[in-house]
Amino acid sequence: MHRERFYTLSASCPDRVGIVARVSGFISAHQGWILETALHAEQADEGEDAGRYFMRVEIRADSLPFTLEELRDRFRPVAEELEMEWKVTDSAAKKRVVILVSQQEHCLYDLLARWQSRELNIEIPCVISNHDVFRGFVEWHGIRFHHVPVAPGNKAAAYAEVRRVFEEVRGDVMVLARYMQILPPELCVAYPGRIINIHHSFLPSFVGARPYHQAWAKGVKLIGATCHYVTADLDQGPIIEQDVIRIDHTDTVDDMVRYGKDIEKTVLARGLRYHLEDRVLACGNKTIVFR
Amino acid sequence: MHRERFYTLSASCPDRVGIVARVSGFISAHQGWILETALHAEQADEGEDAGRYFMRVEIRADSLPFTLEELRDRFRPVAEELEMEWKVTDSAAKKRVVILVSQQEHCLYDLLARWQSRELNIEIPCVISNHDVFRGFVEWHGIRFHHVPVAPGNKAAAYAEVRRVFEEVRGDVMVLARYMQILPPELCVAYPGRIINIHHSFLPSFVGARPYHQAWAKGVKLIGATCHYVTADLDQGPIIEQDVIRIDHTDTVDDMVRYGKDIEKTVLARGLRYHLEDRVLACGNKTIVFR
Amino acid sequence: MHRERFYTLSASCPDRVGIVARVSGFISAHQGWILETALHAEQADEGEDAGRYFMRVEIRADSLPFTLEELRDRFRPVAEELEMEWKVTDSAAKKRVVILVSQQEHCLYDLLARWQSRELNIEIPCVISNHDVFRGFVEWHGIRFHHVPVAPGNKAAAYAEVRRVFEEVRGDVMVLARYMQILPPELCVAYPGRIINIHHSFLPSFVGARPYHQAWAKGVKLIGATCHYVTADLDQGPIIEQDVIRIDHTDTVDDMVRYGKDIEKTVLARGLRYHLEDRVLACGNKTIVFR
Amino acid sequence: MHRERFYTLSASCPDRVGIVARVSGFISAHQGWILETALHAEQADEGEDAGRYFMRVEIRADSLPFTLEELRDRFRPVAEELEMEWKVTDSAAKKRVVILVSQQEHCLYDLLARWQSRELNIEIPCVISNHDVFRGFVEWHGIRFHHVPVAPGNKAAAYAEVRRVFEEVRGDVMVLARYMQILPPELCVAYPGRIINIHHSFLPSFVGARPYHQAWAKGVKLIGATCHYVTADLDQGPIIEQDVIRIDHTDTVDDMVRYGKDIEKTVLARGLRYHLEDRVLACGNKTIVFR
Repeated sequence: MHRERFYTLSASCPDRVGIVARVSGFISAHQGWILETALHAEQADEGEDAGRYFMRVEIRADSLPFTLEELRDRFRPVAEELEMEWKVTDSAAKKRVVILVSQQEHCLYDLLARWQSRELNIEIPCVISNHDVFRGFVEWHGIRFHHVPVAPGNKAAAYAEVRRVFEEVRGDVMVLARYMQILPPELCVAYPGRIINIHHSFLPSFVGARPYHQAWAKGVKLIGATCHYVTADLDQGPIIEQDVIRIDHTDTVDDMVRYGKDIEKTVLARGLRYHLEDRVLACGNKTIVFR
Repeated sequence: MHRERFYTLSASCPDRVGIVARVSGFISAHQGWILETALHAEQADEGEDAGRYFMRVEIRADSLPFTLEELRDRFRPVAEELEMEWKVTDSAAKKRVVILVSQQEHCLYDLLARWQSRELNIEIPCVISNHDVFRGFVEWHGIRFHHVPVAPGNKAAAYAEVRRVFEEVRGDVMVLARYMQILPPELCVAYPGRIINIHHSFLPSFVGARPYHQAWAKGVKLIGATCHYVTADLDQGPIIEQDVIRIDHTDTVDDMVRYGKDIEKTVLARGLRYHLEDRVLACGNKTIVFR
Repeated sequence: MHRERFYTLSASCPDRVGIVARVSGFISAHQGWILETALHAEQADEGEDAGRYFMRVEIRADSLPFTLEELRDRFRPVAEELEMEWKVTDSAAKKRVVILVSQQEHCLYDLLARWQSRELNIEIPCVISNHDVFRGFVEWHGIRFHHVPVAPGNKAAAYAEVRRVFEEVRGDVMVLARYMQILPPELCVAYPGRIINIHHSFLPSFVGARPYHQAWAKGVKLIGATCHYVTADLDQGPIIEQDVIRIDHTDTVDDMVRYGKDIEKTVLARGLRYHLEDRVLACGNKTIVFR
Repeated sequence: MHRERFYTLSASCPDRVGIVARVSGFISAHQGWILETALHAEQADEGEDAGRYFMRVEIRADSLPFTLEELRDRFRPVAEELEMEWKVTDSAAKKRVVILVSQQEHCLYDLLARWQSRELNIEIPCVISNHDVFRGFVEWHGIRFHHVPVAPGNKAAAYAEVRRVFEEVRGDVMVLARYMQILPPELCVAYPGRIINIHHSFLPSFVGARPYHQAWAKGVKLIGATCHYVTADLDQGPIIEQDVIRIDHTDTVDDMVRYGKDIEKTVLARGLRYHLEDRVLACGNKTIVFR
């Protein structure tokens, strides 16, 4: 993360000769100073005509002679010529992160510490929980807390409320910080690539409930956690980040839960940071992560 | 691994008060000098009466006033009293390891280097392969090489020959060092806890064929390898050791195969060493590994 | 960590035949149920007569027919016979941890989250800081906060006050959770093996100030953190736990500081846990850690 | 590593606006198809006018309408305009790697296995050793073996012979695969950035002799290995790659030596590969490694 204000162009397009030249030529024609560039050519699968090209460029804001809006207007013809999916974001515009949490504190404390220290350069307009336990902690930080109980009979109403709050606070990202409820498909579909979950296993192993029990029963020698985008397909969304930790026969399920927390919060924080810095580009059901 | 000659007692029995006192009392009554002790109480599953106790003790051979045979005879009543499954091995008796290999060299070279440098204190009476490619390399090391081709029509005969050779050379352990054939169930059943495989995925993810292709398609951020005992249930035997390595979107399947080799050979060597030093005790379909 | 109440015997003594038999015989004679045992023989250095033997045994409290005090009284003759340094602690007696912090929040938030969730089974009678920034956060948790400013002219008085508070609250352990002051030698000497620090480098590399700048200048490919006991010899006390994280040329010092925080808090929490569970035994200027 | 033949341009130059545009514009003007691009801006240190820009570009050979020689000729004016240090290499031209070894086999076996399987796309014109032990093994692979004994009295002559052989076989890289001699400064100076060593510690910890003994005495919880370019300043050359492995109090120096070998061979192989693929660019006494 650079200290100067910068714009981040992230884009993908069909691969062909001259993409980098076209884009970097555009930038340099306006005396744009590039801070960081990452490029990737994903080869064509069998049966496809061409591969796909991915890029992420950070340009120092004060090096360009015009505004962000004008940058977008001027770049649009280039993007259209290259058939790009693209966006340009501004490091000065903090993303608005809505955190959903249940009764475990490790991810919540971890995210708030990173927000407090400005390690995560975000706004947290509110925390939503199906329990009321963290109200005091959250409000002490000056953050709004919404208790939205979820019960078998009220799910539709509950998730309508979650969505209403998310819209009301103009949320950019919804983070499930060990939120122990399954979001309904329509909510997942409403915000593609904008809902991030931390799953407490090294996916695709141990999908579904009680992954540490599954891991214990299987006798694996490492356990892990997976940060992924939420889709309507439970625990199957594009993986952003994963990590593991070594265990052995002396570790009970309780021990694994405890170790797992350390992995969960670290993996969630890393995955979220990649997302916030526009380092994650969708590539089918996979991700390109320009770390 | 200690330099002095020592005996290794490895045992498990129903948990109760006084097991350690009984065994260590026996050893100290004969002035046995303990080099290393590892103990583990596995708690009872629901519905079981008692947990199970596991132990591994190394005793300096020259501290005992009798032979290995006599040690076994004298310990037998203690073991029976405690309802133990047990054995005592001698660090001076090299285990006889038969290596099965196909066409990939990384595990074979790695094991022979460890044997050559005496890091693995074993005998390798022969290498068996379904291809003839490594004959020269193996024979140069003074090790017999058996080419046992496996074809759709001759499987029964081929594995009868593998078994005949293994028996003839009095093999203790069969190591599948990226042997790309599936052993028939009757062979697996014949040598429980004596056939070790290296699987090129972080099991239970990606069982079966082409795990790196599966991992690539899933977009995982780490790939791994698993060393496990072979049972009649493909890729489901007790896991001895696992490890992983980080990959990213720039890595093709070929790159993953290449990275994977480094993990495979290391994990296989570690798992095999644990087995050879009698550090691995069976516990249902899991293992206790006293590292 | 077992759920039942248990006593932990940790001890070391000159190595000889029969130590385990003597201790486990004592326990089993009283029908003591052993939950966990770890043993280690440290070989003699050249010029020493004998090696040293280390042990840690957890005994279920309700399996013994007497109190903790009586256990200690009865064990004392055994310990004297074996020339042991020893202690017995009670899992029901929470240790009192005093946290010292400066202006960085990551370790403080992390420790309070673990305390809040009862992952760390401790009492935190107070937090001491040379700055006033975390008063509100700490007090919100119902924990006393002491602001003890440290300035060039008042160091003796400041550390006298730290010591007074630590004594007043009957602290067992002092944790320097990124406390950016150097404790005076007399304070270090007063509490041997009771002051735990987290140093932001993989010691012995990069002792002293600004280790991340040193690491950046050297171009290392991994950075780390070290949890160690504080002695009068700066950054040289016995190491309890360490870990590292991969960096590369794209990482600035700021990035390294940020990555480092994740390692620091994890390593500190692990090291502290080992200490709290009496898993760390001194062995010269090194530690035996029975994980 | 791509399967198609490609040219690799690696370069660095003072940072300014338009570098990427200039270089990618040149490539696209000739219809060059870019397979892989990595770019890095190293910020200016205090007191310096400008930062430095580093790049590595792989261009498919068959996409360009001219030869490698012509590519170089045409690119030269661009490079001069940008004040570049630069080179272009051809994936079809195998680099010639001369291996120096003493009496430990792990790195030698490992490198020959990688060469044998074509994982490393190199030629090994000869192996040089100060001992004669690996002659048979090396020659069996069809590789020349030079025994060049090194004794206190003959060092100058010995290293003159090493240099003569290296020149005679037109070596590109000299790899010290646990070569237990210190190269004389004049040899180091003669081949800057072309001699690669594997040091058996996590530098800068434990420079000099017997690093595992030093690590054992210090009681560190992880040990490591470092692959670096050799300079006249012992163990201080630019670091290419490092890794570590966890140890604990049960590990003797012998165990550490054994674990260390696994790290050493992996780290050496990774560092060598980065070098061979022109992924390592010098940046003062540090390296930029475009993995």
